[in-house]
Amino acid sequence: MLTEAKNFITQMYSELNYDNQSLNERLTAISAEITDTGSYTHTYEELSYGAKMAWRNSNRCIGRFFWNTLTVQDARDVDDEDTFIASINHHINEATNNGKIKPFITIYHPEHPPKIFNNQLIRYAGYDDYGDPAEKQVTALAQQLGWQGNNTNFDVLPLIYAMPNQPVTYYEYPSEIIKEVAITHDQYPKLKSLALKWYAVPIISNMDLKIGGITYPTAPFNGWYMVNEIAVRNFTDSYRYNLLESVAEALEFDTLKNNSFNKDRTLVELNHAVYHSFKQAGVSIVDHHTASKQFSLFEQNEYQNKRDVTGKWSWLVPSLSPTLVSNYHHGYPNIMNDPNFHYKQQEKRGCPFH
Amino acid sequence: MLTEAKNFITQMYSELNYDNQSLNERLTAISAEITDTGSYTHTYEELSYGAKMAWRNSNRCIGRFFWNTLTVQDARDVDDEDTFIASINHHINEATNNGKIKPFITIYHPEHPPKIFNNQLIRYAGYDDYGDPAEKQVTALAQQLGWQGNNTNFDVLPLIYAMPNQPVTYYEYPSEIIKEVAITHDQYPKLKSLALKWYAVPIISNMDLKIGGITYPTAPFNGWYMVNEIAVRNFTDSYRYNLLESVAEALEFDTLKNNSFNKDRTLVELNHAVYHSFKQAGVSIVDHHTASKQFSLFEQNEYQNKRDVTGKWSWLVPSLSPTLVSNYHHGYPNIMNDPNFHYKQQEKRGCPFH
Repeated sequence: MLTEAKNFITQMYSELNYDNQSLNERLTAISAEITDTGSYTHTYEELSYGAKMAWRNSNRCIGRFFWNTLTVQDARDVDDEDTFIASINHHINEATNNGKIKPFITIYHPEHPPKIFNNQLIRYAGYDDYGDPAEKQVTALAQQLGWQGNNTNFDVLPLIYAMPNQPVTYYEYPSEIIKEVAITHDQYPKLKSLALKWYAVPIISNMDLKIGGITYPTAPFNGWYMVNEIAVRNFTDSYRYNLLESVAEALEFDTLKNNSFNKDRTLVELNHAVYHSFKQAGVSIVDHHTASKQFSLFEQNEYQNKRDVTGKWSWLVPSLSPTLVSNYHHGYPNIMNDPNFHYKQQEKRGCPFH
Repeated sequence: MLTEAKNFITQMYSELNYDNQSLNERLTAISAEITDTGSYTHTYEELSYGAKMAWRNSNRCIGRFFWNTLTVQDARDVDDEDTFIASINHHINEATNNGKIKPFITIYHPEHPPKIFNNQLIRYAGYDDYGDPAEKQVTALAQQLGWQGNNTNFDVLPLIYAMPNQPVTYYEYPSEIIKEVAITHDQYPKLKSLALKWYAVPIISNMDLKIGGITYPTAPFNGWYMVNEIAVRNFTDSYRYNLLESVAEALEFDTLKNNSFNKDRTLVELNHAVYHSFKQAGVSIVDHHTASKQFSLFEQNEYQNKRDVTGKWSWLVPSLSPTLVSNYHHGYPNIMNDPNFHYKQQEKRGCPFH
């Protein structure tokens, strides 16, 4: 732990141009604290800068240009249920920000945190014939705990959590804090009849945040959506909402034969629909071309600061028209630097193989 | 070499259900030949089956369902220029097959083959302001040798070759053996004004074929095109023909702003154009949905034959609408089994990093 703490603190102090005396004082204090207690406590600045670095080091993330804009809610002192729920609602409200989404993270105590069982704070339930198949397990857990959904395609799952040494329970969000966007297409009015929608803010809640040897097991965080995550992966993956055929029908394409290229056209129009529905609702979203351009700027910034850019190519490449963005044509070393976010068990999003 | 020969022959005999006596006789003969001469000579059947296995083991290739249909031209006895040129013209004619393209390979002598300097037998020249930038180096070599192109976007490069112990020279194909397809779009007649075209048969000529410890440095081979190779990579990669903007203009899209999704629409329509132009000209081509379906059948066949499927995910995933095909959602071990095709130096096609 001391080595990892030293590496982190030294890098942070160097990036922030702090002088050597401050660095040595802090390292001495950390060393003493670890000797005394077996661990050490991050200052708010360390917690905050460490979380930002973790985002910057997230190899799968194309949105890292904005790493330094992350707002960090220090929730390490949260130890009762009401404060916990309040901190979660505060996160959702602040991150949603009435549509102008703010990158946000809430960090609970490393050793005795409330435990969250959701993959994302906001997510739709998965039933046998409705909803999001990716959430069947979490939905079953919610139902075991007594939660009842409405059996629609888009039932917001409750927060499923356990306070330290307490049983698992659930909490239903006040519906007014969950911003959702109805999906329509200006040139294809029939799309509306499918009654598609999606929630505004993807708040990942199933990853460990590791900073300088300390693991924070509960640290939900969010950016805003890149359009393809919703339009391509969530809506058309065959093991997710699997909507390609219904959407094509609503768009009145007369055939989906492979060589008609109507599957491909449907996918483009669905991206158009999701993007412009979000924009019209005043909710932040980015298209893949712009996101990739921002990633190039991120790369330039990193090189200017003499830092290498690590990345996972298969995740950085958008799922629509991948070759049209520059990162398709680059390689990135997939090295996991610290601080970073780590999956708890197997990867939940996307394909675990690549 | 003996070990590699043994592995290959044993696998081949096992796959073809040959009996142990034949196997042992052949292994004894090979062992004796290697002791005598330092190498051994494949029978035609070994050469042919080995080449098919090399295709089957090509991790980057999505078209491997057809591995067993490869036609193998044994050109190991070719040692004079006229016979060499005749064998190349024969390959082009047989492979083109008046449009109904046949997977075909021509294999020259392992130790004293004619050397080919082209990346593919048929390819367009790259000049400063015209043509295919990927071929600038080969074009410069052709010009050094005295070849003169017409400075168009689509000048077929000559064959550049050297017979053993002879200087490098070039040969211009009779134009009637090079089948090309003019690219048009039934719904966008203005596309025709760009005068785009592409050649029918991609005959890779810059890879080593390795079978059972023997390397064949000259072994040009072809399948038929998957539409995205031409429409996406060759036509729109910024370091290739870079045609996205010209095509969008011909299709009369009024903006290419990122969030208009017209870049994505242009790409789909260009794929439509290339595919249907080839089909209308009676030239074999496959769309990415169908190719991926065929790859799934290949996988099933391999598992039924108790063989593992190796693959390079980033190459197997089509460059248009990748998530709509099943191999996007699978993982493949990228292990290079033998027999196989190997790049001579650095990779020439696609991105060397992934």
